[in-house]
Amino acid sequence: MPDNYPFTKLVRPLPSTVPFVGPETLERRRGRTFRARIGANESAFGISLLAQKAMSEAISRISWYNDPDNFDIRNGIADHLGIPPENVGIGAGIDDLLGLVVRIFIEQGEYIVTTLGAYPTFHYHLAGFGHQAQTVPYRDGRNDLQALSDLANRTSARMVYLSNPDNPAGTWHTATEIEAFASSLPSDCIFILDEAYIEFAPEDAAPLILPILPCTIRMRTFSKVYGMAGARIGYTIADSEIISSFEKVRHHFGVNRLAQIGALAALGDRAFVNRVIASVEEGRAEYTALGEELGLPTLPSATNFVTFDAGDAQRAAGILGALQDLDVFVRKPGVPPLDRCFRVTVGTEEERAFFSEALRQIVRLH
Amino acid sequence: MPDNYPFTKLVRPLPSTVPFVGPETLERRRGRTFRARIGANESAFGISLLAQKAMSEAISRISWYNDPDNFDIRNGIADHLGIPPENVGIGAGIDDLLGLVVRIFIEQGEYIVTTLGAYPTFHYHLAGFGHQAQTVPYRDGRNDLQALSDLANRTSARMVYLSNPDNPAGTWHTATEIEAFASSLPSDCIFILDEAYIEFAPEDAAPLILPILPCTIRMRTFSKVYGMAGARIGYTIADSEIISSFEKVRHHFGVNRLAQIGALAALGDRAFVNRVIASVEEGRAEYTALGEELGLPTLPSATNFVTFDAGDAQRAAGILGALQDLDVFVRKPGVPPLDRCFRVTVGTEEERAFFSEALRQIVRLH
Repeated sequence: MPDNYPFTKLVRPLPSTVPFVGPETLERRRGRTFRARIGANESAFGISLLAQKAMSEAISRISWYNDPDNFDIRNGIADHLGIPPENVGIGAGIDDLLGLVVRIFIEQGEYIVTTLGAYPTFHYHLAGFGHQAQTVPYRDGRNDLQALSDLANRTSARMVYLSNPDNPAGTWHTATEIEAFASSLPSDCIFILDEAYIEFAPEDAAPLILPILPCTIRMRTFSKVYGMAGARIGYTIADSEIISSFEKVRHHFGVNRLAQIGALAALGDRAFVNRVIASVEEGRAEYTALGEELGLPTLPSATNFVTFDAGDAQRAAGILGALQDLDVFVRKPGVPPLDRCFRVTVGTEEERAFFSEALRQIVRLH
Repeated sequence: MPDNYPFTKLVRPLPSTVPFVGPETLERRRGRTFRARIGANESAFGISLLAQKAMSEAISRISWYNDPDNFDIRNGIADHLGIPPENVGIGAGIDDLLGLVVRIFIEQGEYIVTTLGAYPTFHYHLAGFGHQAQTVPYRDGRNDLQALSDLANRTSARMVYLSNPDNPAGTWHTATEIEAFASSLPSDCIFILDEAYIEFAPEDAAPLILPILPCTIRMRTFSKVYGMAGARIGYTIADSEIISSFEKVRHHFGVNRLAQIGALAALGDRAFVNRVIASVEEGRAEYTALGEELGLPTLPSATNFVTFDAGDAQRAAGILGALQDLDVFVRKPGVPPLDRCFRVTVGTEEERAFFSEALRQIVRLH
């Protein structure tokens, strides 16, 4: 189709695509809602009542723009982490922050290294700014730190992206391994450490917050353990010079007012977070047992989801489709070697029971 | 200061700046809150109770990501306007949409035309992508359509930005004038028509929605008459090929879930919108009378604010500072010729009374 409008050379060939097809889109295609929405790693355990109350009370003031300095939530996070607010930056979710780091650091022709099959939205932002990542495959269900480091050094990479714990595998590395990995990268390589799921991980998976890792931007979110995915709020932890560079290009008024207020309240409800973590651990154990029962081995998980190994990509796709037919929404990795797996978010007790029954039924047939 | 990090050539020299200093920032500097927050053209008349109820009920599901297709709100707006959903695009406010159009359409070295002193966030996005606008001054307190068109044609401009009704002037042109202006632009020039304030304007200020104006992207928002500035949701009206180009680079999951739900409910409360418009008209009349009383002529306004003419820039700045000292937050244009003015949002009856008294007191002294 010829273009009738003067799109830039960069934008013209890009596909009109969504990195993830939303469950609502699938529901509209099917003409039927899902009974278990356990495909997008959304929290099944809601939000803190404190956060809910704070947001609810703030609705009547939604006519006011938010504070473009994000002063309250930025200081709240800094206090929570025990660091100065100058080391904390706020964004409308990690997706927003990933777009910004691509824009801030990468020149045309520079190399970017990540794992093949890593978070699609990072690749989406790379493509949107004219870049493409160099990749290494998962190895034994984990990010291959040695191969990533080798490739980053061989290409003098400008940026490396790693999620720890990993999505979509669920596996993780220890803080010691992550720190050694960071040190092994070229000195002018920006290391994006996506810790969206860190609250679900063993304590030794997270490097200490201080001292700030050099050239490293850690990203965290209120979308997972805090149950605020629809609110769009996340943050970075980095050197103050990096944090202030975001001020040059970010949408200062872009983080919803209720999201900021809710996130601040959520930070104050440690008991809620602990309950969510405990519920997720319980659900993970159930899924692991289910996988053993059905001959679908699960990868170890430090996240709020579990990745089941179906043996090969065709069978994994078959199971995914059959689950959808039974009104269970899950997702699967799209590229080898993890495309032989499907990924299931820890749901509520009811959702887990519904999913388990569906999976048992399917495996009897497949 | 030397840079310790590999920022891109484009980003390195950019200032770490906020297009607008937020009232909260001023309050922290002053150590005192404002009693009348009437500087950011936020609605003083809150949000529809229907929208408030819908958002409130949706908080418990904020753990779900939003629908990346924005299906419900997109269709709701399309129905509201009587056009196909293919002609409607959703964004996290007009600020978000402005950043996207700059990215989608402008190559390095191309010309962009707007009025000197037009919406600072448009200039912020231009700078953020390496561009700078060519400008023509306001003329008699209005956008100078003839001069804008002449400059756009002389430079073969890629993009023209115009707000109608205008911010910060408040003045407007008729639909006939806007349509003639659009037709006068080069055939491959993208015309950004920012209609953030259109609901407050006389009916003849808005071109018909159909047929869609060629090469034109109209932008509207829930931040003004709907009183949802803190929610971050706005939309574009344009040819479907333009709308679908946004899918190539936008944040599909970037529009807060409550914002989408609240906006849809707000569209259904026409009575609320009519009350807000009536209240704003009442407030504008009060401000106009106040200006006459105090010898501070006001510009005609088709918005939710009124721009007072203080005669010269120094006096305008003096009045602005004095108002702040009396706990009244207003803003003023920064560049000639409108820098001789200050801009006051229509507040609640109480805020207007407080402001009027403060202004009377100040004018007696200045």
